[in-house]
Amino acid sequence: MSKQYVRLDKDNAAVLLVDHQTGLLSLVRDIDPDKFKNNVLALADMALYFKLPTILTTSFEQGPNGPLVPELKEMFPDAPYIARPGQINAWDNADFVQAIESTGKKQLIIAGVVTEVCVAFPVLSAIEAGYEVFVIADASGTFNAMTRDAAWDRMSAAGAQMMTWFGAACELHRDWRNDIEGLGTLFSNHIPDYRNLMNSYFTLQEQK
Amino acid sequence: MSKQYVRLDKDNAAVLLVDHQTGLLSLVRDIDPDKFKNNVLALADMALYFKLPTILTTSFEQGPNGPLVPELKEMFPDAPYIARPGQINAWDNADFVQAIESTGKKQLIIAGVVTEVCVAFPVLSAIEAGYEVFVIADASGTFNAMTRDAAWDRMSAAGAQMMTWFGAACELHRDWRNDIEGLGTLFSNHIPDYRNLMNSYFTLQEQK
Amino acid sequence: MSKQYVRLDKDNAAVLLVDHQTGLLSLVRDIDPDKFKNNVLALADMALYFKLPTILTTSFEQGPNGPLVPELKEMFPDAPYIARPGQINAWDNADFVQAIESTGKKQLIIAGVVTEVCVAFPVLSAIEAGYEVFVIADASGTFNAMTRDAAWDRMSAAGAQMMTWFGAACELHRDWRNDIEGLGTLFSNHIPDYRNLMNSYFTLQEQK
Amino acid sequence: MSKQYVRLDKDNAAVLLVDHQTGLLSLVRDIDPDKFKNNVLALADMALYFKLPTILTTSFEQGPNGPLVPELKEMFPDAPYIARPGQINAWDNADFVQAIESTGKKQLIIAGVVTEVCVAFPVLSAIEAGYEVFVIADASGTFNAMTRDAAWDRMSAAGAQMMTWFGAACELHRDWRNDIEGLGTLFSNHIPDYRNLMNSYFTLQEQK
Amino acid sequence: MSKQYVRLDKDNAAVLLVDHQTGLLSLVRDIDPDKFKNNVLALADMALYFKLPTILTTSFEQGPNGPLVPELKEMFPDAPYIARPGQINAWDNADFVQAIESTGKKQLIIAGVVTEVCVAFPVLSAIEAGYEVFVIADASGTFNAMTRDAAWDRMSAAGAQMMTWFGAACELHRDWRNDIEGLGTLFSNHIPDYRNLMNSYFTLQEQK
Amino acid sequence: MSKQYVRLDKDNAAVLLVDHQTGLLSLVRDIDPDKFKNNVLALADMALYFKLPTILTTSFEQGPNGPLVPELKEMFPDAPYIARPGQINAWDNADFVQAIESTGKKQLIIAGVVTEVCVAFPVLSAIEAGYEVFVIADASGTFNAMTRDAAWDRMSAAGAQMMTWFGAACELHRDWRNDIEGLGTLFSNHIPDYRNLMNSYFTLQEQK
Amino acid sequence: MSKQYVRLDKDNAAVLLVDHQTGLLSLVRDIDPDKFKNNVLALADMALYFKLPTILTTSFEQGPNGPLVPELKEMFPDAPYIARPGQINAWDNADFVQAIESTGKKQLIIAGVVTEVCVAFPVLSAIEAGYEVFVIADASGTFNAMTRDAAWDRMSAAGAQMMTWFGAACELHRDWRNDIEGLGTLFSNHIPDYRNLMNSYFTLQEQK
Amino acid sequence: MSKQYVRLDKDNAAVLLVDHQTGLLSLVRDIDPDKFKNNVLALADMALYFKLPTILTTSFEQGPNGPLVPELKEMFPDAPYIARPGQINAWDNADFVQAIESTGKKQLIIAGVVTEVCVAFPVLSAIEAGYEVFVIADASGTFNAMTRDAAWDRMSAAGAQMMTWFGAACELHRDWRNDIEGLGTLFSNHIPDYRNLMNSYFTLQEQK
Repeated sequence: MSKQYVRLDKDNAAVLLVDHQTGLLSLVRDIDPDKFKNNVLALADMALYFKLPTILTTSFEQGPNGPLVPELKEMFPDAPYIARPGQINAWDNADFVQAIESTGKKQLIIAGVVTEVCVAFPVLSAIEAGYEVFVIADASGTFNAMTRDAAWDRMSAAGAQMMTWFGAACELHRDWRNDIEGLGTLFSNHIPDYRNLMNSYFTLQEQK
Repeated sequence: MSKQYVRLDKDNAAVLLVDHQTGLLSLVRDIDPDKFKNNVLALADMALYFKLPTILTTSFEQGPNGPLVPELKEMFPDAPYIARPGQINAWDNADFVQAIESTGKKQLIIAGVVTEVCVAFPVLSAIEAGYEVFVIADASGTFNAMTRDAAWDRMSAAGAQMMTWFGAACELHRDWRNDIEGLGTLFSNHIPDYRNLMNSYFTLQEQK
Repeated sequence: MSKQYVRLDKDNAAVLLVDHQTGLLSLVRDIDPDKFKNNVLALADMALYFKLPTILTTSFEQGPNGPLVPELKEMFPDAPYIARPGQINAWDNADFVQAIESTGKKQLIIAGVVTEVCVAFPVLSAIEAGYEVFVIADASGTFNAMTRDAAWDRMSAAGAQMMTWFGAACELHRDWRNDIEGLGTLFSNHIPDYRNLMNSYFTLQEQK
Repeated sequence: MSKQYVRLDKDNAAVLLVDHQTGLLSLVRDIDPDKFKNNVLALADMALYFKLPTILTTSFEQGPNGPLVPELKEMFPDAPYIARPGQINAWDNADFVQAIESTGKKQLIIAGVVTEVCVAFPVLSAIEAGYEVFVIADASGTFNAMTRDAAWDRMSAAGAQMMTWFGAACELHRDWRNDIEGLGTLFSNHIPDYRNLMNSYFTLQEQK
Repeated sequence: MSKQYVRLDKDNAAVLLVDHQTGLLSLVRDIDPDKFKNNVLALADMALYFKLPTILTTSFEQGPNGPLVPELKEMFPDAPYIARPGQINAWDNADFVQAIESTGKKQLIIAGVVTEVCVAFPVLSAIEAGYEVFVIADASGTFNAMTRDAAWDRMSAAGAQMMTWFGAACELHRDWRNDIEGLGTLFSNHIPDYRNLMNSYFTLQEQK
Repeated sequence: MSKQYVRLDKDNAAVLLVDHQTGLLSLVRDIDPDKFKNNVLALADMALYFKLPTILTTSFEQGPNGPLVPELKEMFPDAPYIARPGQINAWDNADFVQAIESTGKKQLIIAGVVTEVCVAFPVLSAIEAGYEVFVIADASGTFNAMTRDAAWDRMSAAGAQMMTWFGAACELHRDWRNDIEGLGTLFSNHIPDYRNLMNSYFTLQEQK
Repeated sequence: MSKQYVRLDKDNAAVLLVDHQTGLLSLVRDIDPDKFKNNVLALADMALYFKLPTILTTSFEQGPNGPLVPELKEMFPDAPYIARPGQINAWDNADFVQAIESTGKKQLIIAGVVTEVCVAFPVLSAIEAGYEVFVIADASGTFNAMTRDAAWDRMSAAGAQMMTWFGAACELHRDWRNDIEGLGTLFSNHIPDYRNLMNSYFTLQEQK
Repeated sequence: MSKQYVRLDKDNAAVLLVDHQTGLLSLVRDIDPDKFKNNVLALADMALYFKLPTILTTSFEQGPNGPLVPELKEMFPDAPYIARPGQINAWDNADFVQAIESTGKKQLIIAGVVTEVCVAFPVLSAIEAGYEVFVIADASGTFNAMTRDAAWDRMSAAGAQMMTWFGAACELHRDWRNDIEGLGTLFSNHIPDYRNLMNSYFTLQEQK
């Protein structure tokens, strides 16, 4: 009667980054801005590292919402980039859905701003369309904890899997032996505590 | 096995405002009063903006519970207004249920004070009666976080969708192109961060 | 697919107070002691007010766990009182189950110390035995919030309804007209904010 | 050996509003935006109500910092308005100091964004220049609580009096009999709990 | 260079209870209402126990502020009771100051609602008038923690001693041998954890 | 429709301790280090006390992750110890699964670092493999509360039972009469409040 | 005008442990019990390590307050042990003051339960008597954060130095070269994070 | 009677970075690691930007404390670097003090790990030696908030100025016109909210 264990599979997963725009980010207050920026960039690095097809979408970049954060634009210069003309639920935009279908992937990793709208709406639509959906909760932000809690409740009840960028990276990688250095670098760049462990370790190794 | 995605539809939704009374509001301590006042008025503005049939109900206005907050009374001068003679669960009042049925809508957006009683009771009854129920969590308040958590758990387990006024507004609107200025004004009036974005943007636009 | 709405019914409900002992209370740290004391006594007053059959049980009163809090002993002088010789799950004690069966009630209102053991264990057993179970979350306490969250998750997943003493009282009462003064007194005695509302109101009434 | 009691005196006080700009406000995260907006407007209303000379100043309105929030501009159309060409400490701007001196007041009520810079710097300078300084802490905002705590420590150690808009209003008014309705309106407009008290009261009065 | 140790002396102390009114109490949100009610009554019990002259004062009882909480009225039927006609700072009321002077005491124990006004103003005035002032912080309440912190900073900088009802009771009593049972009863009635200790202890004693 | 009550049974349960390594522990920030250390050792003591087969596993002990905490190594000198060569999900390691199967137990008690990976992955795999899984939430740690909440949501939705070491110990023991002193010692060593109760009690007993 | 830097000197310091009794510990709720127990024992270990004269005192061990925690009794079998017959302020007990004077030390390191009474009172008295006083804040506990804040304010204003056991240990030791292993052991036993660092380090060293 | 306003002067200030070592950083739990890393690097960038003489010091890099974080080593390749052989208070190391004296500066900006030792000790010594001391509170970290509060209290009482890297940068810069682009870049690199403002602004500027 409980949810089946569907594992993230790097050969079957795509990443959707929804509305990480410079204006909208000023609305995010359920997570510290330093941490949030780090999490979003960590998710993007993860997508690049695992060569996951990644789709960018924004809402009204020309207006107060502001442009996509430049770092994301630079990291995915060739990714499908759907500047939606007005649809709030990205799934209502045919180009966006088409871009997803073109990847041929059946697992969708989604993050965005703000959680209860730009994330939750396409999450619910994607589940209905038959996709396995993994929400990257810590790369998604919103107004406050109460808003977030309501959004998590709705997405989880619909069958989405609530995850974080670190959990997703570990589930995609499966085995450190696939590439120790690559995964280690990803972690070192985005987890200060892990970077410290590594720096302590390698310094001591060199002293031998 | 998980909940289906039922979207809010502005042609099929009604709003129920339950017991936002000046006395009862002094019981609300799980949310800051400035924010709570803003959220309740935002929900009311949203109902007006989308022209959703709205029903007001109160419990013992003549006594310590106090009158309905005057702003709501003024915003909905012609709305059905059921001053319940004693029923705690508004759904136990035939006039209230009749008023809902008269709208012909099958989606109910509910908020009130206090969450675990004035909101949860009619929510559970409405689900049982076959309605799709959307709780506006941030326009509902109660004694403390523990009380709120218990109420959310009960409502969510029964199949209610936990939402916020902002999420509901976005799901009702579907597409900015339906009316950019109207929705923008609603947000500007009730989200200070969004108002700042707009003020920065339009000032800069004017400088051109 | 979601839980059905089972309403508390004052003619079909019994109250179980599990291990509110003077020693064990020093373990409770997920809720402030002033508030917790008030909530437990409010639940007891509620049981008396609605004349619900109430069953007391304790674990090792002679040892460090300490005696049942004297107030409860005094409030229910004739209630079944099962001093368990060793069973941790009160449901493993035949006298306790027998006492419940003797009430003939099918709805059980349960609170106790500590939440994940003295409450959760009989809650899970009672559900399995076919009872409708209502946990009074705010009259139950434990070591910390993490412990509480785990206990709530387990009980809710098993089908228990998470409630508070105030929510239970309102659901039992159904309609203020059944006895305005009685319910008002219960609230005035245990909700300082409500007492203030009433004092302001009646003072002003008298001035007329 | 302790600070002397210097009371705010409405005939000897001026208000300085420093850098409440639409862009800078997105940096404020030590206080909820709904509450902060309310506090700033309450302070402005207070200044108008007591007819205190008020001075506005901004930093780089043309750039990312954004314009002064329009509400303040509209509330004080004739107030001295010093758009600083670059000075971070407003006190380093001769026009600003000149505007203060022109008021002839010796008590300065200061609020702004962000607390440890735009507020603290002129506060420290003003004390050095011999003024009595009253910081309106809840109409001043900054990055986080740690930043705020450091700023408060520095200002308090220098001799500033830490206050809030409500405390300042009460100290300026001295006696309700000076104008019950005016002060009541100010409170009703900016303290939802107080508004509720008044609405309950006057409704009951009318029923007589 | 630091403050001298001035001890509370039961032969030289008076208690001032300022504006604990049923309406104003709805403004208090920096402390839980169950705890706050308990602390105020504990302070009152303490005053009675040590037979300290106690002075009550209120502000506009006829209006929205509401009457003095009835419990205090009943506990001090013969105490000076100054219903101020309008002065916000109680010290500006000659009758209030006269009542204090009539006690002949030089140490003042003060609590009230709200902290930064009804407490802080007479505290600052009393210090200026040469009294030793002890603020009972946990029997004083206000809008939020930021407001409280500002009020504490101002009072402490002025030389007030920040205390709690329990600390004051202990400093007044000096030695348990002066009356073990009396002090024990005071603590048992207002500190649930202490009551539990006593109940465990005496139960075990009786078992011998 | 809700989860069945599956009780922990000491004759049918095994304990899995996953990656409690000295380096990885520096990543744990959702629980205080003093408390976390105590909880992990309490869980280990519990396993020894109930003679539950226990399996240890680590990931890259030679690298920055650091060695298993020495206390665990010493407490379980003869336990299966699987130093995984690279698999992130311990269940992907055949030796680990083999060690579990060799125990012949069908209930698995799991704790580890970090929650959303080292705990959640084998939890989900074990459920899929037909085991009853009990997560010891308070002996598992991770980066922050948001990460933990996402992990709990995923595990709970999959059918895991969320528990704590204390709850598990009580459910395994069933009845104090099975061994009062043994369980009492376990609690005394890991619950300071319980130790205090016992010390107060036995001291008083000795005085008789 | 600010406090002079008085350094802790191991040849001139004594330790006072006030009322760490098994009953009174149940009152401590401003710090987690696991952490508090660790801090108190760390302070005791520190006193032993630096061979500081240590004085124990208790209040009414025979009654509900309970006995001194046994660990402290065992660690200081020969220390002066003043079981006060009734004085709440330990400084009012001539034996206690005499025991301090007998040490010939002029720096007093004080911790106890509860902070605003058992710690603050002798702290204030000791300063008045001319001692340099260092409060070990994290080995002192009380009812809640508000109570603690008031106590800190009073002690700090009087000239006490607020410290922690770790800070005191470091200031007493001055230079690691005085005994690396001893201080390292003290830290390893009471700071889990430091123990992890040491275990990682020495394991790696051994691998060479 | 209050502290004089001593302003940071870029021609008279030096920066001391004390014990930001990869091992010790695992002890820091009063501030989130993402934010702390950012703050320390921001302070370092600030020192470079204003060309302030900067001095690095560490304690036992060869042992568990670990090496200085590599980023700092790389940013200040030519800075005095004092690897202390054992002194806990860096001021007890003659080379460290000599390095400071060699700068000829009289204002010291200090940050380090952990706050109550590695920061507070040299802060107190430096004040005693006649320097003006500015603590960068948000680039200093320690075990928990209680430890930090005690350290702040001690340093502030001794006359240190509590600041943050942002406040210090603003006070050093004095006037944006000294270099708009340089300061803007510093802020953009270390304040995500400010970076967003700038990105929104410049994107819009380019659209003209």
